[in-house]
Amino acid sequence: MSNNRIVVIGGTACGPKAAARASRCDPSVKITLIEKEDGLSTATCGLPYYVSGIIESEDEMTVVGPDYFENLMNAEVLLNTEVVNIDRETHTVTAKNLKTGRVANVGYDKLVLATGSVPAIPKMEGLELKGIFTLTGLRDANAIRNYMSSIKTRDIVVVGAGLIGLEMTEAFVTAGFNVTVIEALDWPLPTLLDWDIAVHVEKHMREKGVDFLFGKRVTGFKGDTQARLNKVVVDGAEINAGMVLLSLGVRPNINLAKNAGLDIGPAGGISVNEYLQTNDPDIYAGGDCVEVINRITGKPMLAPMGSTANKHGRIIGTNITGGNDTFPGVLGTAIVKIFDHDVGRVGLNESQAESAGYETVSALVPANEHATYYPGSRDFLLKLVAEESTGKVLGGELAGPGDIVKRIDVLVSAISMGATVNDLANLDLAYAPPFNSAMDPLHNAANVIRNKQAGLSTSIPAQAVKKKIENGDNFILLDVRNPDEWNTVRIAAEQARLLPLPELRQRLDELDKNREIIVICRTSIRAYQAQRILDGAGFNDVKFMDGSIRAWPYDLLEMS
Amino acid sequence: MSNNRIVVIGGTACGPKAAARASRCDPSVKITLIEKEDGLSTATCGLPYYVSGIIESEDEMTVVGPDYFENLMNAEVLLNTEVVNIDRETHTVTAKNLKTGRVANVGYDKLVLATGSVPAIPKMEGLELKGIFTLTGLRDANAIRNYMSSIKTRDIVVVGAGLIGLEMTEAFVTAGFNVTVIEALDWPLPTLLDWDIAVHVEKHMREKGVDFLFGKRVTGFKGDTQARLNKVVVDGAEINAGMVLLSLGVRPNINLAKNAGLDIGPAGGISVNEYLQTNDPDIYAGGDCVEVINRITGKPMLAPMGSTANKHGRIIGTNITGGNDTFPGVLGTAIVKIFDHDVGRVGLNESQAESAGYETVSALVPANEHATYYPGSRDFLLKLVAEESTGKVLGGELAGPGDIVKRIDVLVSAISMGATVNDLANLDLAYAPPFNSAMDPLHNAANVIRNKQAGLSTSIPAQAVKKKIENGDNFILLDVRNPDEWNTVRIAAEQARLLPLPELRQRLDELDKNREIIVICRTSIRAYQAQRILDGAGFNDVKFMDGSIRAWPYDLLEMS
Repeated sequence: MSNNRIVVIGGTACGPKAAARASRCDPSVKITLIEKEDGLSTATCGLPYYVSGIIESEDEMTVVGPDYFENLMNAEVLLNTEVVNIDRETHTVTAKNLKTGRVANVGYDKLVLATGSVPAIPKMEGLELKGIFTLTGLRDANAIRNYMSSIKTRDIVVVGAGLIGLEMTEAFVTAGFNVTVIEALDWPLPTLLDWDIAVHVEKHMREKGVDFLFGKRVTGFKGDTQARLNKVVVDGAEINAGMVLLSLGVRPNINLAKNAGLDIGPAGGISVNEYLQTNDPDIYAGGDCVEVINRITGKPMLAPMGSTANKHGRIIGTNITGGNDTFPGVLGTAIVKIFDHDVGRVGLNESQAESAGYETVSALVPANEHATYYPGSRDFLLKLVAEESTGKVLGGELAGPGDIVKRIDVLVSAISMGATVNDLANLDLAYAPPFNSAMDPLHNAANVIRNKQAGLSTSIPAQAVKKKIENGDNFILLDVRNPDEWNTVRIAAEQARLLPLPELRQRLDELDKNREIIVICRTSIRAYQAQRILDGAGFNDVKFMDGSIRAWPYDLLEMS
Repeated sequence: MSNNRIVVIGGTACGPKAAARASRCDPSVKITLIEKEDGLSTATCGLPYYVSGIIESEDEMTVVGPDYFENLMNAEVLLNTEVVNIDRETHTVTAKNLKTGRVANVGYDKLVLATGSVPAIPKMEGLELKGIFTLTGLRDANAIRNYMSSIKTRDIVVVGAGLIGLEMTEAFVTAGFNVTVIEALDWPLPTLLDWDIAVHVEKHMREKGVDFLFGKRVTGFKGDTQARLNKVVVDGAEINAGMVLLSLGVRPNINLAKNAGLDIGPAGGISVNEYLQTNDPDIYAGGDCVEVINRITGKPMLAPMGSTANKHGRIIGTNITGGNDTFPGVLGTAIVKIFDHDVGRVGLNESQAESAGYETVSALVPANEHATYYPGSRDFLLKLVAEESTGKVLGGELAGPGDIVKRIDVLVSAISMGATVNDLANLDLAYAPPFNSAMDPLHNAANVIRNKQAGLSTSIPAQAVKKKIENGDNFILLDVRNPDEWNTVRIAAEQARLLPLPELRQRLDELDKNREIIVICRTSIRAYQAQRILDGAGFNDVKFMDGSIRAWPYDLLEMS
């Protein structure tokens, strides 16, 4: 009996990669690759850009075709074929051709489950109407493109402000539609970002004409006489919409695995060990359908990403041909282009870190992508989160027009290797004026945290300051910018007063040593310096506001 | 007696940073900042862009002025003042005002040496002629700008193909000059890059009209009757030139330290411990004038960089006010924009790694900055070097139009934390089509190395293939690209033959199992697949060529 028959279920990312890798590791293996849809290896992550027309042709969306496997390997590719049963006893899968209805059994020595995910759709009334879409494959993308051109209204509703929801929002706005995003939680990318970063994403999207409804649930849809959607029901109210995209996330496609008696983990995905092996040693699983370990918390989570699926495929291909490769887990890294801004995150954000039981310390740093004296330096906002006692870097969030993906990836690398803020502060990052400042924003953020840890500085978040302003608290909001900055834009507050940093040491006697003082400037660099001067002069209750005016999440008072 | 008098010698990067940090850590310190030149904190790294006019105004080149220190701290700034002696016994420096000639003694409790570096200039005849420049400060930059506009010839010679030399070459070419770069070693950036990456830098610069003379030494200069340079003497021959930039690197400015009896290290810089303390516990030193530890080899080296100087400044500022911060060393990271390409490196290149005693394994990967189906994906070439036995990442070099600095900085972070290629291969790097491919080029390069380590693939460098072609060796240069690619461009060789990858398995009998076969394609992805197919079919001597046609460092045969 042969020992090298491999069956792979799922043809998008992990499956084809596992098949190709297995065949390269051991060219003698016989592979059957089974896919429900009509094609293999679609570039799923590119679908929003195909809908928007940035990617012009459908052809560009297919990574490799069936002939690739058939020509290069001992591989048979079964398209339009669904596996309906796994018999672990006899090592056989039952596959049904969805076009002919023919059923056949295929034997395996090693089986790979790469069954992916399916859109999460709660029960809602009217889901059967025309004009309601999810986006999981090329078929959806083409259907959306067609329907977009058929609707008369310019109103589209996107349900769910996650990554796909926001990418598709941009695609729809670019195509000339009015988009309302409805999100049950309270800000965009709510499972990825803290509010103080997300609020800037919201602001940018509103500037581009996007409307948001937060904290609201879609309960149903209404249609016209041709059963075409024309209204979305949101907590009882109705919103006009010619089309709806449901982007409420995905859930792992685990039916086959479950029916075969394979272990399902606490997060709802197939449970695998570090070799990506299920509880059946002859069955491996990877990609969206499995749970992965969060490298920081050590706990299983769902993180459906094409990048992870590809890594999984390679590891599975190695292991089912006698190798011994392991997957260390993920950091929940995400990046998304939203109009003119990029938004990214890695690790645990502050609220996640606190939920996970960490005592955190964070830095909120307005930054520029490279030396400002070199032309074209775009800005962004960086939030860095660390464990207070150890300085261990837990996560980062960035948003803005500037080059944030570099900093995300540096953090990925650092956090994966267990870096502390001390490590981060002294990384020998590449420096020349077109590329960076002498100190990278990550260096600065790490140093802000080290200053807080060392007791050199004390900060207060904008939210707390806002509350104090509104409560009419008795404190000084000490703005240490220059008069021309103050006369351009400022935070509206009775408690605000100007005292430019260069004059501070000479004018200390104008300030009450026992009043609470909260110092601000544009980015908090000068505010921190002012705090140190005031501390040194014996002032008793001085803080700076995290991120100062550039990170202020509320409206500013424009003076001119 | 007071215990908080700090004297800082040097006002460019490390010195001002140390002063500012010291004052923030302990607002009660009294600082004297002494600088030989007429200004502080020039953005020295931006000088080439000031010469080219990309940075328009001189004002933008000054980071902070003396008033910054005087207003914000107990600081006195002495410009145009040179320290001529350090008396360690009495804790006093002797400072001479270069304008008035007045000499004064300044007492210190802690002394900071941030004396920087001076251009390395070997003895050459005619150095006194007008029109010969180095570039170390704003004064030089202004002199160069003035002289450029005064010369009648369009010929400029740059001596030394290091970072500054190449940046200035671009500045001169952009201003309309013909530039010849003369370099004693054999390729551009010779102390930073291996030849197989550097050759692509050379190619790009030649396409921009730059001429190079490698392996040649400038022995002198000749001038006209007004003592204005008009010829450069190179190994006996003469080259016309209206102006010369000497960019032969810098050497640490250690005279003061040496005269004071402080330890000088083996690389020629001031020797400091991890606290940046000299052998005199009351004297700290940082920036270009000190030796730093190479984080890979653990050995002292010189790495004069503005980024390091800034980090040093902060650490020194902390430590001279009672703190306890340490500097972990550098990775020799460098990045430079050269016309339309970016060029960077980190760690040890392959020849440095071999000199340091490592058995190395490397990957040469032609790559794209993001998913190619998303528009505008620019390419680059990546070389990754690891220790063969352990897989420890030793260094990386990148060059090309694409986003290389992100990959450099990921490597900086990874190498600093001791990452292996296994670690690198599974980093959860940020992925979305506008930002990356599902597998980052670093993942791919790490996997190429892992394949080599696992014996799955064997490669041969282009240089060795070139030699075999020229020797008329009996081997097959098996090109597995498509016929249309073959008919566009190929490597000129009698031994070359086309056998497209999709047909390979069907046409194996056309190939001799015992002949040496070297497989190539465009990027080596298909070549590697072909190698695995041939290995599996019992071929005995199959290799792929590192980097294939896109990394081929010699001329290609253009077919159409």
